[in-house]
Amino acid sequence: MATTGAALTALDVVESTQDALIVDISCDTRDADHAQQVSEALEALNGVSVHRSSDRTFLLHLGGKLESTPKVPLRNRDDLSRAYTPGVARVCQAIAENPEEARRLTIKRNTVAVVTDGSAVLGLGNIGPEASMPVMEGKAVLFKQFADVDAWPVALDTQDTEEIIAICKALAPAYGGINLEDISAPRCFEIEARLRDELDIPVFHDDQHGTAIVTLAALENALKVVKKDLKAVRVVLSGAGAAGHAIAKLLMAAGVEDIVVCGRDGVLDKEVDHKDPHRAWLAQNTNPHGVTGSLKAAVGGSDVFIGVSAPDLLDGDDIATMNDDAIVFAMSNPNPEVDPLAAGEHAAIVATGRSDYPNQINNVLAFPGFFRGLLDAKASEITDEMLVAAADAIAQCISAEELNPGYIIPSTFDADVAPNVAEAVSAAAR
Amino acid sequence: MATTGAALTALDVVESTQDALIVDISCDTRDADHAQQVSEALEALNGVSVHRSSDRTFLLHLGGKLESTPKVPLRNRDDLSRAYTPGVARVCQAIAENPEEARRLTIKRNTVAVVTDGSAVLGLGNIGPEASMPVMEGKAVLFKQFADVDAWPVALDTQDTEEIIAICKALAPAYGGINLEDISAPRCFEIEARLRDELDIPVFHDDQHGTAIVTLAALENALKVVKKDLKAVRVVLSGAGAAGHAIAKLLMAAGVEDIVVCGRDGVLDKEVDHKDPHRAWLAQNTNPHGVTGSLKAAVGGSDVFIGVSAPDLLDGDDIATMNDDAIVFAMSNPNPEVDPLAAGEHAAIVATGRSDYPNQINNVLAFPGFFRGLLDAKASEITDEMLVAAADAIAQCISAEELNPGYIIPSTFDADVAPNVAEAVSAAAR
Repeated sequence: MATTGAALTALDVVESTQDALIVDISCDTRDADHAQQVSEALEALNGVSVHRSSDRTFLLHLGGKLESTPKVPLRNRDDLSRAYTPGVARVCQAIAENPEEARRLTIKRNTVAVVTDGSAVLGLGNIGPEASMPVMEGKAVLFKQFADVDAWPVALDTQDTEEIIAICKALAPAYGGINLEDISAPRCFEIEARLRDELDIPVFHDDQHGTAIVTLAALENALKVVKKDLKAVRVVLSGAGAAGHAIAKLLMAAGVEDIVVCGRDGVLDKEVDHKDPHRAWLAQNTNPHGVTGSLKAAVGGSDVFIGVSAPDLLDGDDIATMNDDAIVFAMSNPNPEVDPLAAGEHAAIVATGRSDYPNQINNVLAFPGFFRGLLDAKASEITDEMLVAAADAIAQCISAEELNPGYIIPSTFDADVAPNVAEAVSAAAR
Repeated sequence: MATTGAALTALDVVESTQDALIVDISCDTRDADHAQQVSEALEALNGVSVHRSSDRTFLLHLGGKLESTPKVPLRNRDDLSRAYTPGVARVCQAIAENPEEARRLTIKRNTVAVVTDGSAVLGLGNIGPEASMPVMEGKAVLFKQFADVDAWPVALDTQDTEEIIAICKALAPAYGGINLEDISAPRCFEIEARLRDELDIPVFHDDQHGTAIVTLAALENALKVVKKDLKAVRVVLSGAGAAGHAIAKLLMAAGVEDIVVCGRDGVLDKEVDHKDPHRAWLAQNTNPHGVTGSLKAAVGGSDVFIGVSAPDLLDGDDIATMNDDAIVFAMSNPNPEVDPLAAGEHAAIVATGRSDYPNQINNVLAFPGFFRGLLDAKASEITDEMLVAAADAIAQCISAEELNPGYIIPSTFDADVAPNVAEAVSAAAR
């Protein structure tokens, strides 16, 4: 154990006979490969054999992470006759007569569908609906834990845009909102836009708007630390996909004027005829000073770098070409656009998407409270004002006294965040 | 209160001032109209005014009857990193590599979709998806309470057969089974048949098979009481819709040879060209002795009457024309095909769908345990053997000593029923 570098946490004798001892060994390992090395090292010891090894992460997921739980007791026939037939018929009739009653008398009031087609799950790509479920269940757990929202995973066995839209519309009566999740671009844009048009419940694509809200919150606080103004800074944004698009739009809604968006081939060119209409929109509506060239060239003289793209696109020397008091949000996960330590040598503030560096930009800060606010306000749509209000609320969870370069964004477990976001969103909705 | 006939259950003084008293009065009333009468009678009293009246049934349904609850705690960053990113990625990959792992590592193992289009809800008819939700939620509560099955309501805003089929197929990855509910005939037949063909999880239409299972269970016990044999009795079945069709088929699978099915116009005629293929099948495959004429005529000389049709089709005199030791299951709800008291004067055994008479034939006895068994066995389809096994298990919950004309079917709250049904179904599946 010691030679492999694992940390032993417990030893339990399970069975003892005259000639053998069965021992349960718990230890912390770095990753699955390391666990395999520990197992092999034990097996190689004289007189030791490994019966079975299990993995805490897999054990946690056994049988899924969610259950559907009654809120009403059925202790006797009287309860049954009220919660189910014949009493329930009067409740059904009340809703049939006035569909608005669904928000009072059914789970619609507090329930959100977490919809995916499994096409862009985490960094794993198109792994399909079954394999996406652990993420969707996890998301539902976070909704409940942080904001008492009942969320249910809807992992669809289709990647046809029209079919996904039709299914969401058919499912809508039971839900007070839809959270789209891990659906690949550009289909996610069409699905979201159409559902927003055609449904009377709010539709939110977390990979876009959740990320944008938390990014804006972090940027607001970072700018306070370096004493720069949102309207005066140049932001270079690496990534013109779903997240990049939403970040650009939200930053503009919040007042940022100078955003330079870079795709794989450098700064989006106004002159090029972009096939993707979202990329075309970004090319036409950003970059007021006509910056051209590579990402590396574009970051020179900028104030803020925001990356939602790919690992290792920049190095410390590139960050050194930014203006003084540079702000770097390198959010590609798990490997950032620039090494955070190298960036930190030249930038005033560095944030990432990772939990093992300071300033983690994590969607969990936004979506639970955001939907809590939508449900509380019985909102039927989502506006830019709500997104900005949510970002402001997250930023304001850190007081002026607490604010510093290593603490621009509250902790995931800060219990004030979700209620504050909910209140801000709810107020903006009303 | 006394004059209106309400039963006073509690009086609480809420507020007392020098010139007035606010009192909370709880009382049991017969129905909503009666509650209104009580309220008016109170208002009419000198010096009394009714501020607000509420209704226990509606209070119970406020905010819905279900919630989505985490099975794993997220107390700290370590929990979060296992239940969600980055740890969850390994679990997703394990499922992507081997889709069978979905039954081990997601909620699929224990979760059933309760799917409706709101087209045939209780006796209320086509009230739509929103208004059907209180029933679907109630169903999910029963699933959890009686058999620890996690069920989730899926109330669809479409009544297009092909669209419902496509949606169920798209939703299937997250579920271990589908319970179709309150979908009108004949669409329910097509939807169920197609889904059974095209999906690898079991699909059960409760209005058909749940009703058929409990009917067969009751019939088995009733025949024990009157000492008649399943193979020797003539059964007259009133109702050629979804439930009638399923009952006829299951009774035949269990060994009943002489079933006469009546629709609105009397005995189904072999010679008529039935447009509905299910009705045509019944006409061709039942009624071996060529009985013809009205329902009233058909019951003469029969041993068993089973009604899943409409109120007040028969009277006591009709039941008197049945053979000795007649068995009457009048299950039209809330008003049976024949008045149970009148029937009881001539029949040996009377059962209904109502909870206020003896021998309630209630689907709740079947569906929770049935799906528990399917999930435990990881069943991919439903066979007649499983349906018969479930009926036998329900029947056998009543011992020979307990069996009597007023107790042929166990109570809804008999805790043995669901586990026994589950075991029988699971054994039949393996």
